Amino acid sequence: MNTIGHLINGEVRLDDNRTQDVFNPATGKVEKWVALASKATVEEAIAAAEAAFPAWRDTPPMKRARVMYRFKELLEQHAERICTLIGEEHGKISHDAAGELQRGIENVEYACGAPELLKGEHSKNVGPNIDSWSEFQPLGVVAGITPFNFPVMVPLWMLPMALVCGNCFILKPSERDPSSTLLIAQLLHEAGLPKGVLNVVNGDKEAVDTLLHDPRIQAVSFVGSTPIAEYIYSTATANGKRCQALGGAKNHAIVMPDADLDNAVNSLLGAAFGSSGERCMALSVAVAVGDAVADALVEKLQVAMKPLKVGNHTERSNDFGPVITRQHQEKVVGFISSAEAQGASVVVDGRDVIVPGFEDGFFVGATLIDKVTADMSSYKAEIFGPVLQVIRVNTMQEAMQLINAHEYGNGTCIYTRDGEAARYFSDNIQVGMVGINVPLPVPVASHSFGGWKRSLFGDLHAYGPDGVRFYTRRKTITQRWPSASVREGAEFSMPTMK
Amino acid sequence: MNTIGHLINGEVRLDDNRTQDVFNPATGKVEKWVALASKATVEEAIAAAEAAFPAWRDTPPMKRARVMYRFKELLEQHAERICTLIGEEHGKISHDAAGELQRGIENVEYACGAPELLKGEHSKNVGPNIDSWSEFQPLGVVAGITPFNFPVMVPLWMLPMALVCGNCFILKPSERDPSSTLLIAQLLHEAGLPKGVLNVVNGDKEAVDTLLHDPRIQAVSFVGSTPIAEYIYSTATANGKRCQALGGAKNHAIVMPDADLDNAVNSLLGAAFGSSGERCMALSVAVAVGDAVADALVEKLQVAMKPLKVGNHTERSNDFGPVITRQHQEKVVGFISSAEAQGASVVVDGRDVIVPGFEDGFFVGATLIDKVTADMSSYKAEIFGPVLQVIRVNTMQEAMQLINAHEYGNGTCIYTRDGEAARYFSDNIQVGMVGINVPLPVPVASHSFGGWKRSLFGDLHAYGPDGVRFYTRRKTITQRWPSASVREGAEFSMPTMK
Amino acid sequence: MNTIGHLINGEVRLDDNRTQDVFNPATGKVEKWVALASKATVEEAIAAAEAAFPAWRDTPPMKRARVMYRFKELLEQHAERICTLIGEEHGKISHDAAGELQRGIENVEYACGAPELLKGEHSKNVGPNIDSWSEFQPLGVVAGITPFNFPVMVPLWMLPMALVCGNCFILKPSERDPSSTLLIAQLLHEAGLPKGVLNVVNGDKEAVDTLLHDPRIQAVSFVGSTPIAEYIYSTATANGKRCQALGGAKNHAIVMPDADLDNAVNSLLGAAFGSSGERCMALSVAVAVGDAVADALVEKLQVAMKPLKVGNHTERSNDFGPVITRQHQEKVVGFISSAEAQGASVVVDGRDVIVPGFEDGFFVGATLIDKVTADMSSYKAEIFGPVLQVIRVNTMQEAMQLINAHEYGNGTCIYTRDGEAARYFSDNIQVGMVGINVPLPVPVASHSFGGWKRSLFGDLHAYGPDGVRFYTRRKTITQRWPSASVREGAEFSMPTMK
Amino acid sequence: MNTIGHLINGEVRLDDNRTQDVFNPATGKVEKWVALASKATVEEAIAAAEAAFPAWRDTPPMKRARVMYRFKELLEQHAERICTLIGEEHGKISHDAAGELQRGIENVEYACGAPELLKGEHSKNVGPNIDSWSEFQPLGVVAGITPFNFPVMVPLWMLPMALVCGNCFILKPSERDPSSTLLIAQLLHEAGLPKGVLNVVNGDKEAVDTLLHDPRIQAVSFVGSTPIAEYIYSTATANGKRCQALGGAKNHAIVMPDADLDNAVNSLLGAAFGSSGERCMALSVAVAVGDAVADALVEKLQVAMKPLKVGNHTERSNDFGPVITRQHQEKVVGFISSAEAQGASVVVDGRDVIVPGFEDGFFVGATLIDKVTADMSSYKAEIFGPVLQVIRVNTMQEAMQLINAHEYGNGTCIYTRDGEAARYFSDNIQVGMVGINVPLPVPVASHSFGGWKRSLFGDLHAYGPDGVRFYTRRKTITQRWPSASVREGAEFSMPTMK
Repeated sequence: MNTIGHLINGEVRLDDNRTQDVFNPATGKVEKWVALASKATVEEAIAAAEAAFPAWRDTPPMKRARVMYRFKELLEQHAERICTLIGEEHGKISHDAAGELQRGIENVEYACGAPELLKGEHSKNVGPNIDSWSEFQPLGVVAGITPFNFPVMVPLWMLPMALVCGNCFILKPSERDPSSTLLIAQLLHEAGLPKGVLNVVNGDKEAVDTLLHDPRIQAVSFVGSTPIAEYIYSTATANGKRCQALGGAKNHAIVMPDADLDNAVNSLLGAAFGSSGERCMALSVAVAVGDAVADALVEKLQVAMKPLKVGNHTERSNDFGPVITRQHQEKVVGFISSAEAQGASVVVDGRDVIVPGFEDGFFVGATLIDKVTADMSSYKAEIFGPVLQVIRVNTMQEAMQLINAHEYGNGTCIYTRDGEAARYFSDNIQVGMVGINVPLPVPVASHSFGGWKRSLFGDLHAYGPDGVRFYTRRKTITQRWPSASVREGAEFSMPTMK
Repeated sequence: MNTIGHLINGEVRLDDNRTQDVFNPATGKVEKWVALASKATVEEAIAAAEAAFPAWRDTPPMKRARVMYRFKELLEQHAERICTLIGEEHGKISHDAAGELQRGIENVEYACGAPELLKGEHSKNVGPNIDSWSEFQPLGVVAGITPFNFPVMVPLWMLPMALVCGNCFILKPSERDPSSTLLIAQLLHEAGLPKGVLNVVNGDKEAVDTLLHDPRIQAVSFVGSTPIAEYIYSTATANGKRCQALGGAKNHAIVMPDADLDNAVNSLLGAAFGSSGERCMALSVAVAVGDAVADALVEKLQVAMKPLKVGNHTERSNDFGPVITRQHQEKVVGFISSAEAQGASVVVDGRDVIVPGFEDGFFVGATLIDKVTADMSSYKAEIFGPVLQVIRVNTMQEAMQLINAHEYGNGTCIYTRDGEAARYFSDNIQVGMVGINVPLPVPVASHSFGGWKRSLFGDLHAYGPDGVRFYTRRKTITQRWPSASVREGAEFSMPTMK
Repeated sequence: MNTIGHLINGEVRLDDNRTQDVFNPATGKVEKWVALASKATVEEAIAAAEAAFPAWRDTPPMKRARVMYRFKELLEQHAERICTLIGEEHGKISHDAAGELQRGIENVEYACGAPELLKGEHSKNVGPNIDSWSEFQPLGVVAGITPFNFPVMVPLWMLPMALVCGNCFILKPSERDPSSTLLIAQLLHEAGLPKGVLNVVNGDKEAVDTLLHDPRIQAVSFVGSTPIAEYIYSTATANGKRCQALGGAKNHAIVMPDADLDNAVNSLLGAAFGSSGERCMALSVAVAVGDAVADALVEKLQVAMKPLKVGNHTERSNDFGPVITRQHQEKVVGFISSAEAQGASVVVDGRDVIVPGFEDGFFVGATLIDKVTADMSSYKAEIFGPVLQVIRVNTMQEAMQLINAHEYGNGTCIYTRDGEAARYFSDNIQVGMVGINVPLPVPVASHSFGGWKRSLFGDLHAYGPDGVRFYTRRKTITQRWPSASVREGAEFSMPTMK
Repeated sequence: MNTIGHLINGEVRLDDNRTQDVFNPATGKVEKWVALASKATVEEAIAAAEAAFPAWRDTPPMKRARVMYRFKELLEQHAERICTLIGEEHGKISHDAAGELQRGIENVEYACGAPELLKGEHSKNVGPNIDSWSEFQPLGVVAGITPFNFPVMVPLWMLPMALVCGNCFILKPSERDPSSTLLIAQLLHEAGLPKGVLNVVNGDKEAVDTLLHDPRIQAVSFVGSTPIAEYIYSTATANGKRCQALGGAKNHAIVMPDADLDNAVNSLLGAAFGSSGERCMALSVAVAVGDAVADALVEKLQVAMKPLKVGNHTERSNDFGPVITRQHQEKVVGFISSAEAQGASVVVDGRDVIVPGFEDGFFVGATLIDKVTADMSSYKAEIFGPVLQVIRVNTMQEAMQLINAHEYGNGTCIYTRDGEAARYFSDNIQVGMVGINVPLPVPVASHSFGGWKRSLFGDLHAYGPDGVRFYTRRKTITQRWPSASVREGAEFSMPTMK
């Protein structure tokens, strides 16, 4: 009875044989199971979507948008329930879950603008009496595969825009924390979405591969790690689909000598440790320009990190919760130890944190490592844990070379008061999302989310204007009417010649 | 106690000495009074708006938009009350009032897209290391003056866009039916609009002239008759303000020999008689091309008009209600009689309609006049009553010349199946809003409303994209940072050279 | 034979009786005369434009744009001749005239993008099977009235965009230096512009008033002084036309304590004295924040001004030339003297400059006045001469209040290295064109030019995207096709059922 | 000496050992050879491009656009030489080559609008005092692989946009007719393009594979056949690149019973036989709705085809020339024969055409085949020859099912006078480029070119707005300045308190 099923053609379904454990990461206990869809189940979902498509694509955009207005209201009304489900399966503290939900709602709001966003381009007289216009039509059935770290927000990067553009959708959420995702899918139906337009299938590689190979799937959106993103992108495209696949990150903040250090320290805390660092936009490396800055920064961070509390999602005074699995906890701890072994200095150590009452939880405390260097394995990899590493360089140029040389190019930030430094940095850094004194430069919903280099495969970013373009295809019509016909109409004036 | 007041700085106010009767046009009785604002009261409203401006313009567009999301919900919740108020003072049947409200809500929805709509234009490297961008900033305090025929919809053409762009607003609604307008202003406050951002002043010429001359008012939007529109436009602009003033109309439908006549007749009924023809988009002239078409059209219209019912707003089976005043009733009847006197044929005569139980109401029945000619005074003027006139011509060209020669250029329509005729018509007709088999081609909220010729004074149309542009002013910033300064920072690398 | 005529319907015309002297301001001599058009001549021009309109509006935008591509080539080929004509009548040094021409050409280039710029907005399914789109159609015949200080550039702000949008144009250039304007009009014809599409009438108030009152003129663009701009705006709008009227300016640069002073001084020189300060974007007031900055600034300016050379336009080593008339020379000198009399300190005095060989020229030397205050008449008025005034304030806030309190709001600039100061300034200053370390923030051709407050009357700025919108009117078409008709076509399949 | 080389870093190069014959298809003779680039040569080109990138990306878009203005002039000046080269190697008649060139120039014109097209999106106050904007930065080094059938136009679909966006380019033209492509590349250098920004490498699979695998290549644009397009797309994307790969087509025209048949026949001729049908937009199937239409159509076509002349490119009275190779000639003839064998009726037979004086040329005459059915191999495949096939159906619905069922979805057309039929067709047909009475609905340069289904792999179409998006990547910057710093500046007012 604690099994989380699929949502196909408007019905919650449980009928796949295989299931997988769903842990509460704060207790370390399995409290639910999730059904793993077979190829047949996924195909059933695709069939339902395909059947729903003709009517949905013909629904006026204004009407499709109205489902989103109602969906926004329902998400706000059910916020507490959604955050609780996130907390139970992901471990995120309730205020953090609320933030995730809010960011998701902003994408629903953006999708409400469909009548404006779907405007085509109209050209009068491209030739004598010839007009031409481009329409942006839906693709048909599209799929989304989403990660555990934002079980509500990332699906909401995809769903609202894809649906409001007139597509039908197959969502495969993370199998680690699927309940909140399923709930928002149900709310979409309550908001008036016709059956079959959205279908949720829980599953593993079998489900994913079915989606990647089925010819009825026109497009695939993915968010996850880089190796999987690469697999998704190359497989989906080899099957002729369009694809956008977002992968990993290693986000650096340069701290310049003229930075407002208190502001920097204060904002770095949330950016590094919020959600246990399990965010693709987590700020995990601070690059201090000059030892004076580095020394001051490390000292201030140490002080600021003292009151940080890790614990269960229900306690609002906690700053962050556990990481997602036992294995992941071990991996994070391993990176800290390797940094230490390779010569870095662990200034604040979160390896042995114990949360009373939650001794079996997958907790790692906030960790600060100084004097990290580019050759350390803790620097090269995406740790995805509450670990902030400090690298010391002598010049801004050196800091930028470090960032540009890294495999990933998702987000980055510079702390400075200087207009020229900020402009030079934002212009030349090989990263898709840049903050100037903003450590988590996640674009608002009216812009689009996307990294560069191996952080994103594809040519259009997620949500926002790029989302509209990704979920539509251009059709260009050129029209000329042959001759005056009815207008000349000698015959029509005859009746008057009594 | 039945006096309708102003809404200034969030408070309903009654303290002007002068009042004016507010009639229920179905009973012909005065049931309420409306306060008429003095110059001092209007200036108080302007002062409140000016005080509220700095904080409101600095509120992020996304937050301003959220007031609109809540406003939409409240309008939907209070729909019945709003429609009743419209009915009591304007006479519009409840389903028609609901339609008006719905069209108004669509403009609220459009305004929800503020973050997208207010995007500026950013140009990197307009010169070496020089960037330039244009922002669209609010104007400050702006005013709207709205007509009796759409006491809810026309204010909603202006308010949502003006407010969401960051302006503060002074609204002067029609003094004939101000209650529904006041209610929606109150709902906007309930939705979270800060006090002073919107102020409603009821009044007459004194209020209008105060708005037109006060230097704190940056822009004026007006909808009403052409003579007043012209006065508003020339006075506001002579005082250095920007202004858009929408005036009268005479909307023709050409019925081509290949038209789907049943469809034409069916859609003409609502377009001609809906809301007693008191719409600036009312279709008041049918131009039949060829007598065969004319004869068939008149015959079918006659049949279709038989079941039309005129009466009180509360009875949903009624098709339309009274006109707005006794004087207006007499004016409409006068036009019918003059057409008859000038040689036209009154096929269906609504002059002597009696509504049982509402014998003192200002009713005019649906009227069809055939064989109207361009020199008749009933053709030259905007009747603004439930009167459809038929003109017979021999060719489409003749029909178009008639339309192009008319003083007004608000809306028009052609009934045809022929692509070439439709394209030729829409391209060459001197009218701002064109329907192809659509008799009331009111642009949806994501486009903009505006006539040509003497139907609109100004260069930007109402609501939609033009509304955004009207309620903002462009600021263009060009930026170059002088030299590398902190970035070169020889001094900053020194501390590391121990 | 030295009389400069009109260009009507492709022919140069001289047949007006009245003429006016055209001076060479460097010699002080009358060397040419300009014909002053009578009402009849202007009406002839309007008639020619009206006759040319139907064919020109039906010419595909791509073809209209090709006239601009060729026009650009011709302007480049004839650059020397154009600059000489500017120099002879305006006095501008050849390199400055070349700069003016180049800025003008950029607007021609922008107009080449007509096919993109004229795209309308297309909405599929605004209702079931109902589409709607907005087109931007030309207005018809429009007029431009341009000032002496940019006889080539300002006409090129208007002409390319107005023409490429499909309008016909009546240009009334400044009567002080009309030759270069006439030449570019002739080059437009050589580039393939059909006769009558552009007509140039030289003249005075009679010509202007004819344009303002003629009902065939749909829109008026004006650039000049504020009192005339106000007259043009109120008169044109009172006649129901759309109008944009650009007026005077008083452009301030704030010099912050952290400014790169050498950069500031260097760029201020050209911005203050270039073209003898006869530019509406001339930087005429430097506001120094703190006496330390003021002292350093004045000292550095004094040194930098020493090598400045004033003289005849043909000598490229000259920095600037004479002012436009003897009266204007006296006016500028008078402002310097009044500042001195009111207590300011004339640090560098250009009142008595003598240019050898050009003793009768209307020269004023570069002048620097320190310790100017806001109550001085030299501060309140637009001097339009080579005079830079320094005001000393204690805070940036004080500097901004000064600017915001001034009647004009055309351009402004801040010198700083600080990102926050720049952002605060650009956000809150009541000026339309803002420079950050850019003293002459004239927007590039892909943005639009316009001041705020009494520097511009109207709601759309000049050239760029606003120019497109100003020179077009929106037509919104809503289309539904009645029934399947030919598509169902039972009858059409019959022939196959032999 | 008749060997066609590469163009690398501004130098024409011949130093690869391998060459391939280049035929004159009208004579059947080898008259030139083309060098086939080795991996090393391609890598040298990539290195040159990479070295040129930093300076080119920092060149202001307006300056990059000016190279395009000059390029347009040079293409027009060298039109005859370009067309001759096309004729000699491709066989296209000179007027057809001129048309190809003109279409290419239109893309150069579009690229001239770079300052407008590259505008980013700027959002003020996404949060309190937080601004965000998106820039569209160049990708770096990108590659284009182009087909034999448009050796000038297709490269001009790619080059202008890619270059003006700031990218460097490696072009691999068709090895069958590389001379005209090389010439336009040289003209681009003459127009001012810096060395290394564009490099041309001739070659075969070795060159292609080098481009597909080299990590320095950021994006690949391809136009050719579907099997190769699929290989390019899957290989490029598997290597993490963005890719757009345009493949084959089978373009149908529906001829409705109400069509203007003379217009249809007239325009079909050019669409079917122009350029020997070797166009991806060639109209190769006419679907007649009803036998009456079919009979009339076939009869009229037969008559209209009589005067068609096939021959050498130099003779302007010829309608079209040879096909590209002997093998291709045999393939086309084979398809005609197979249709005949499978039961279709060859009404006009071009199989045995002999061109006097060019007996060894690869000619096929204009061929009309009636009563083709969907199961014939001549219907399933893209013939790419001067062959028009007629299919007979009973209803429009049947015609549309045929089109929607075909593998390709490049272009299509309907001949009708009926607005409803046209709208229904354009809305529901699964084809990317739709003509209404326009048989070759190639989008103009301000729209974008792209088919649906297996005619295009990728999510962005070629050239136009999609081209801009394809050749740029979005960078989103979010900016907040920490505190008032210099603006508060108590210290700066101190110096004045002496």
